[in-house]
Amino acid sequence: MRSTPAFRPSAALKTDAVSLPAQDHAFSLPERQAVYRAIHARRDMRHFSGGTVADDLLQRLLSAAHHAPSVGFMQPWRFIRVRSQPLRESMHALVEQERVLTAQALGEREDEFMTLKVQGVLDAAELLVVALPPGREAHVFGRRTLPEMDLASAACAIQNLWLAARAEGLGMGWVSIFCPVKLAELLKMPEGSRLIAMLCLGPVHAFYDQPMLQAEKWARRAALGDMVFDDVWGQPGGPFAASSPDPGSSDSR
Amino acid sequence: MRSTPAFRPSAALKTDAVSLPAQDHAFSLPERQAVYRAIHARRDMRHFSGGTVADDLLQRLLSAAHHAPSVGFMQPWRFIRVRSQPLRESMHALVEQERVLTAQALGEREDEFMTLKVQGVLDAAELLVVALPPGREAHVFGRRTLPEMDLASAACAIQNLWLAARAEGLGMGWVSIFCPVKLAELLKMPEGSRLIAMLCLGPVHAFYDQPMLQAEKWARRAALGDMVFDDVWGQPGGPFAASSPDPGSSDSR
Repeated sequence: MRSTPAFRPSAALKTDAVSLPAQDHAFSLPERQAVYRAIHARRDMRHFSGGTVADDLLQRLLSAAHHAPSVGFMQPWRFIRVRSQPLRESMHALVEQERVLTAQALGEREDEFMTLKVQGVLDAAELLVVALPPGREAHVFGRRTLPEMDLASAACAIQNLWLAARAEGLGMGWVSIFCPVKLAELLKMPEGSRLIAMLCLGPVHAFYDQPMLQAEKWARRAALGDMVFDDVWGQPGGPFAASSPDPGSSDSR
Repeated sequence: MRSTPAFRPSAALKTDAVSLPAQDHAFSLPERQAVYRAIHARRDMRHFSGGTVADDLLQRLLSAAHHAPSVGFMQPWRFIRVRSQPLRESMHALVEQERVLTAQALGEREDEFMTLKVQGVLDAAELLVVALPPGREAHVFGRRTLPEMDLASAACAIQNLWLAARAEGLGMGWVSIFCPVKLAELLKMPEGSRLIAMLCLGPVHAFYDQPMLQAEKWARRAALGDMVFDDVWGQPGGPFAASSPDPGSSDSR
């Protein structure tokens, strides 16, 4: 038993918890709450209600993505907007193929996995593909020892898009269940590019109260205290240390 | 010359541009503006003013990170908070070593690169390390063909932290100029873990008006239209197509 207090993620949205920013450059309290609301209410959505996304709204979302940080300011994200229905159906077929292969690789969780559909590839108003462009080897800044920082930057762009979409009332899901070689053929990708995401984006009937994979009992959120160490790997992280999950507060996310 | 309108990122923050969400689940207009403000005003900071970050504030930021999306809900992020001053100085020495090696690898831009200091590792109120934990091979969901989705998830967590920090008035910088093998020794990282970031976090005197690497003329922001394609790689992206950068609007970011 530890004497440090358990972590309470629910504190993040309480007024009293965000009322005392330490800094002159802080946003107003309502602004800070809005940012935390987007972060905590964002969900990886698999269920969409069709509809459309207006061009100016899509532009705001893509602009949000484009204003992500990037290693050496290389801006390694490219977006392909799937407008062709036959192409979308071919992409859905790729996902279904990989879904079966993933299920088999999961062994004892095969049946459980197969109940999780990826219908959003067909149903979402918009389907976007995200790729890293060719020629990235020219960018050495921040990548000599960590070349994968290009992918990290593109993931930050996707997270920007995700949060902006949530604020706009649109759901998004990141699908990584596909064969990138086959998808590259479909999209005529150039040599040296790299596919990292299919993004399902659009109106939804409702946002999940908690992560879908938690609701489906696939996994549950860990305690924050178990994610934070002090100075060296494995050393409990001071005031954030917690010895067990706190489902009462984290399940509601 | 194309007839499609040039992209104007400045539209993202105008009231009229965000006044018509299409969806029932949209945030209020001030909330949406706050989210976009965080996205557009966030900077990769290299200059810090010392000071401290209160424990409850740091907890909110780490909780924001922990509420990122993750492939198969695997939550592959771990944070090491550097509290030891000798450890921090050793980490700064690692960055300086790699900075010289990166400069040499850059060839003709060597001198230009060397003017860009990484003083934040010493000056920032907090120094956090982000790593992927060992044992990730057990997570096949969404990673059979794209195993690097663990890194992508952790990058989303870092972006959450970055945006929340900006809203709280704190600057953050992501340093990837270090040898991960040497850093792993310093931090006693277990086999199978993977280091992806040093994060400098804390109060700043001022946020840059535009990305520092753009102000320093290292690179400039591309036009959004050049980042978006329709259906196949290289096909101009409909209403987002633009043939050249729009410096008048993007320089202000």
